[in-house]
Amino acid sequence: MAAEPTFNRVTLEQLLGKRFFYAPAFSLYGGVAGLYDYGPPGCALQANVLEVWRKHFVLEEDMLEVDCSIMTPSEVLKTSGHVDRFSDWMCKDLKTGEIFRADHLVENVLEARLEGDKIARNTPVEITADKDERKRRKAAKVAAVRLDDATVQTYKETLAQIDNYSGPELGELMRTFGIKSPETGNDISEPVVFNLMFASSIGPTGQFPGFLRPETAQGQFLNFKRLLEFNNDRMPFASAQIGRSFRNEISPREGLLRVREFTMAEIEHYVDPTKKDHSRFHEVASYKLKILPASVQLQGKTELLEIAVGEAVEKQMIDNQTLGYFLVRIHIFLTKIGINPDRVRFRQHMKNEMAHYACDCWDAEIHTSYGWKECVGCADRSAYDLTVHSNRTGEKLVVRERLPEPLVEEKLQLEINKRVFGPRFKKDAKAVEDHLTSLDQSALEQLKKLHDEIGTFSVSVNDQSFDITKDLISSFERGSITTHVREYTPNVIEPSFGIGRILYCLMEHVYWVRPEGEQRGVLSFPPVVAPTKCLLVPLSTNDVFVPVLNKVSAQLRRNGVSSKIDDSGASIGRRYARNDELGTPFGITVDFQSAQDNTITLRERDSTKQIREKIEVIVELVKEMCEGKTTWAEVSAKYPAFVSQEIAG
Amino acid sequence: MAAEPTFNRVTLEQLLGKRFFYAPAFSLYGGVAGLYDYGPPGCALQANVLEVWRKHFVLEEDMLEVDCSIMTPSEVLKTSGHVDRFSDWMCKDLKTGEIFRADHLVENVLEARLEGDKIARNTPVEITADKDERKRRKAAKVAAVRLDDATVQTYKETLAQIDNYSGPELGELMRTFGIKSPETGNDISEPVVFNLMFASSIGPTGQFPGFLRPETAQGQFLNFKRLLEFNNDRMPFASAQIGRSFRNEISPREGLLRVREFTMAEIEHYVDPTKKDHSRFHEVASYKLKILPASVQLQGKTELLEIAVGEAVEKQMIDNQTLGYFLVRIHIFLTKIGINPDRVRFRQHMKNEMAHYACDCWDAEIHTSYGWKECVGCADRSAYDLTVHSNRTGEKLVVRERLPEPLVEEKLQLEINKRVFGPRFKKDAKAVEDHLTSLDQSALEQLKKLHDEIGTFSVSVNDQSFDITKDLISSFERGSITTHVREYTPNVIEPSFGIGRILYCLMEHVYWVRPEGEQRGVLSFPPVVAPTKCLLVPLSTNDVFVPVLNKVSAQLRRNGVSSKIDDSGASIGRRYARNDELGTPFGITVDFQSAQDNTITLRERDSTKQIREKIEVIVELVKEMCEGKTTWAEVSAKYPAFVSQEIAG
Repeated sequence: MAAEPTFNRVTLEQLLGKRFFYAPAFSLYGGVAGLYDYGPPGCALQANVLEVWRKHFVLEEDMLEVDCSIMTPSEVLKTSGHVDRFSDWMCKDLKTGEIFRADHLVENVLEARLEGDKIARNTPVEITADKDERKRRKAAKVAAVRLDDATVQTYKETLAQIDNYSGPELGELMRTFGIKSPETGNDISEPVVFNLMFASSIGPTGQFPGFLRPETAQGQFLNFKRLLEFNNDRMPFASAQIGRSFRNEISPREGLLRVREFTMAEIEHYVDPTKKDHSRFHEVASYKLKILPASVQLQGKTELLEIAVGEAVEKQMIDNQTLGYFLVRIHIFLTKIGINPDRVRFRQHMKNEMAHYACDCWDAEIHTSYGWKECVGCADRSAYDLTVHSNRTGEKLVVRERLPEPLVEEKLQLEINKRVFGPRFKKDAKAVEDHLTSLDQSALEQLKKLHDEIGTFSVSVNDQSFDITKDLISSFERGSITTHVREYTPNVIEPSFGIGRILYCLMEHVYWVRPEGEQRGVLSFPPVVAPTKCLLVPLSTNDVFVPVLNKVSAQLRRNGVSSKIDDSGASIGRRYARNDELGTPFGITVDFQSAQDNTITLRERDSTKQIREKIEVIVELVKEMCEGKTTWAEVSAKYPAFVSQEIAG
Repeated sequence: MAAEPTFNRVTLEQLLGKRFFYAPAFSLYGGVAGLYDYGPPGCALQANVLEVWRKHFVLEEDMLEVDCSIMTPSEVLKTSGHVDRFSDWMCKDLKTGEIFRADHLVENVLEARLEGDKIARNTPVEITADKDERKRRKAAKVAAVRLDDATVQTYKETLAQIDNYSGPELGELMRTFGIKSPETGNDISEPVVFNLMFASSIGPTGQFPGFLRPETAQGQFLNFKRLLEFNNDRMPFASAQIGRSFRNEISPREGLLRVREFTMAEIEHYVDPTKKDHSRFHEVASYKLKILPASVQLQGKTELLEIAVGEAVEKQMIDNQTLGYFLVRIHIFLTKIGINPDRVRFRQHMKNEMAHYACDCWDAEIHTSYGWKECVGCADRSAYDLTVHSNRTGEKLVVRERLPEPLVEEKLQLEINKRVFGPRFKKDAKAVEDHLTSLDQSALEQLKKLHDEIGTFSVSVNDQSFDITKDLISSFERGSITTHVREYTPNVIEPSFGIGRILYCLMEHVYWVRPEGEQRGVLSFPPVVAPTKCLLVPLSTNDVFVPVLNKVSAQLRRNGVSSKIDDSGASIGRRYARNDELGTPFGITVDFQSAQDNTITLRERDSTKQIREKIEVIVELVKEMCEGKTTWAEVSAKYPAFVSQEIAG
């Protein structure tokens, strides 16, 4: 999928900077790669997107929202596997010490070589006005060197599964393809592991190590018991959390797409592992998604398959209904906030790229001028997290479910003879008894054999061996056991949203340039997420407009519509141009006629068309358009267009 | 001010834990002092309080909200003074190594001695059911030892200004009063400084030190230029930020009141230092506040003064209108969310307790069972932060204001003779010239004297001395300079809210126990902040209620009222009791009659009184009460009370 032909990243970035959607943090101090601040419009856009997220997911499905600690003791993340395995591969320029992320280095060099090949073959290379991209090409030393066809094929296949290589494999690729440090041509070290968590220590003694959480999920898992109880022990259910997480990226790049600190929104949906169907799946079964299964990528291909999610689950391309249900809900959410639905695909992870906790994962990837970018992960974490925390802490993290009918099973049971047992083992008696009663059926079967054949067996408890002779046992027979409760560790389906990435993709998708006149930029945010919904513009700074302005502003506020008054001296055209850049969907002009007849004009951002009606009518229309109850197309079909010379330009 | 007589902290904390308002974080792993997780009701309460905050401050005054980086390079916090001065004094038990915050240790020991004295004098000591408090007393070894009157007086005066002592002074107090380690009786070390910031490092080389921000303010200051421009260069204006901050407290205690990670809401209001009046001050001038000025505390007293803010500003007890305006706005905000206005006071900081950046500070303190607790700080940071960042980075952080009339001043001016200057100083010429043109009037006056009398003077630039002889100067005379623009560094008034502390105080203030029956706890949150607004209760699990429930629920949602259905099998009384604990203000019961005649009963939490009306009427009433447009008192006066046997209990 090619970038939109009219898209120019340089002018978009200029606009976003000028209107302070976001900016590099600490730029007074030279900045820090991967850290950004959101200015007023970016902050409002983020708040509105999160509000839609909360309504679409949390309220719609009665999820339990929590707000947990960011600072996390290292023991928790040791258990969860993050201390050992939450890492990337990095390598060094052996002379300058410059550091690269190994997979990015291979990717950049191979892409540059393919581009050089295109030039050499005289194929038109995509020309780009993008400064970063040009710099990257220069840095990657794009040289017009022709490659043979087999090499081109090998490079392409390697790139298609670039996320699937381990560190040693990346090292091997570097040797095979003769990859050097792009700027210097120096040799590169073997890839080594770099943990991506920010470390700190808690408390005044400095002896209590901690990390900033790399995901919001762990806080939710650790509260599983409380949440299940809060939900009156009902299953399935989901918890959710919106909050900041941190990853100490090796080489942050591509603006908001790869940063060191970011807002996430994560859902942990707990299901019975034997019932991964979903009660609302029928609502989404016919919804079509573009998918890219792992099997296709492993063939070195990237062709998308468009398929109804019902069919994909039936054919086992998507593992289960719950996963399928969430993929559709994610797609609807992204569409609702203004992402172009044609530029969203769902890509399944290959085995090596999967996070250590996941047994299956589908990413919602959004297409941008940087290519396809992972913005939402939807992982099946199975029972991994609850199991490891339970094993480590000894706290049961399970669901206990009353069986509809008691379950009767034939089981081997061992009963000790307490009269002899206590005096024989004294202080160890309790521990040995606990050990014997905790044994599973297969262990009991083996001991039973020894018991019957030799008359004795031994067990090891706390590194000590104890002989269990016949006199210690009062019965060791098969009997029927009735169970009323089923106990299980739930599986977790986790949709996880990188909010900053989504915001950036959104800004790319809604950006365009008005071809007329001065080529003014427009951000066509849907009203529901637009930072400001309505601009109020008095014709001039004349005091006569103030009462009308105040009236309109109060009525809008009463109807829950955020508005801003721009009573600066600039021309109306200039004031509207500024608000096109801010993505404000509606503009209301107050002129001399307004003060007389209570009418105002309403301008719609994308069409720049206007209508003129009584204040009350306009306010109601704006409200309904902001709530998605009607659209400008419907409104402009119903009300006559208004043309005013004053506002043109 | 004594704790509310009926208040019992133990039962409140049980309730908050049971209903998962909040809980110690990582409790599966033994927990970490000062880190808490908010469960669903706590999370919703926090979101609602922040929403009120945003409306009350940000929207009401068109503040510019931003969202900045938490991870902060150490150079920024070095400049802001936090690396050197954001610290507490700690001391150690010399034998066990136990660590204390020095001021807390002195405070606890003296308070314990005063309590012991009361017992000895047979004055009834306030009896407490509070476990923590009993533990503290025990730990502090409250012994019935009678003190002489002079000692009692000294202790009281010391406690009244406990926040005003430096580390060495605290050490002196420990020696004077013979303070030892409370548990062991061991000697205590001299207080040493402990920096309260969490340290980390950024990037893969580990050579780039950073801290987690201890306040959200610095991010706002660093964006000052962008924000001023965004505001079309208009003054005064304010930025605002809601976000997480971190302080590595020496000894976190008192639950949510002293934690290591917390959500803040901060406003930086920029004013012209020569005009600290406020355009809306007249709206609040007659509003009365209870204040405790620094001068009173320094006399060892704590009596409050109730005074209209207009009078307090006039009498210079409160420095300026802007500060006074915000104190009132803070008080109104706290009242709006349910804090008891009688239990709020404004205490001025004494000189030693003031943060290093502040020149004046008033804390809004809220009274709790732990005593008066600082929940909102309102500091005048003067031009401190903008000045230090500007000096360090060389970036001007100023306001440039067009003067209404040009200002003409007689000034000494030095003009160099470029023809001679360049060849003489070569590569240094530019630096020397810059130095000469940057000199202020008094420096010029001195040089002029040397120039006129000796014919030469020397200046030092980059550690090198340069002789400025007469031939280098083409003119050095007095002349009139016309200025069109005034340039100044704005002052900052900063209201800063600790959200977690406010939430805890709120929960204390709205908690009470229904005296009837089983002594059930109630949290009387105002509807606007209640985690859930309305509970929907079908009489039983009978399917006949489902259509009515869905109808009511949909109508409430359409009106923006959050509701929960409780269709568990528990009795209606038990379901209401659960929701009293959750602070749900309204309950709607659907019974057999509802299915027939479209009427439902509405129960109000605090009175437990009910009315019965058509669905549409009830939904409208609930909506209006949630929006604060009417009250239950008005509603229950207008509609007849409904008594139903089913719901009693």
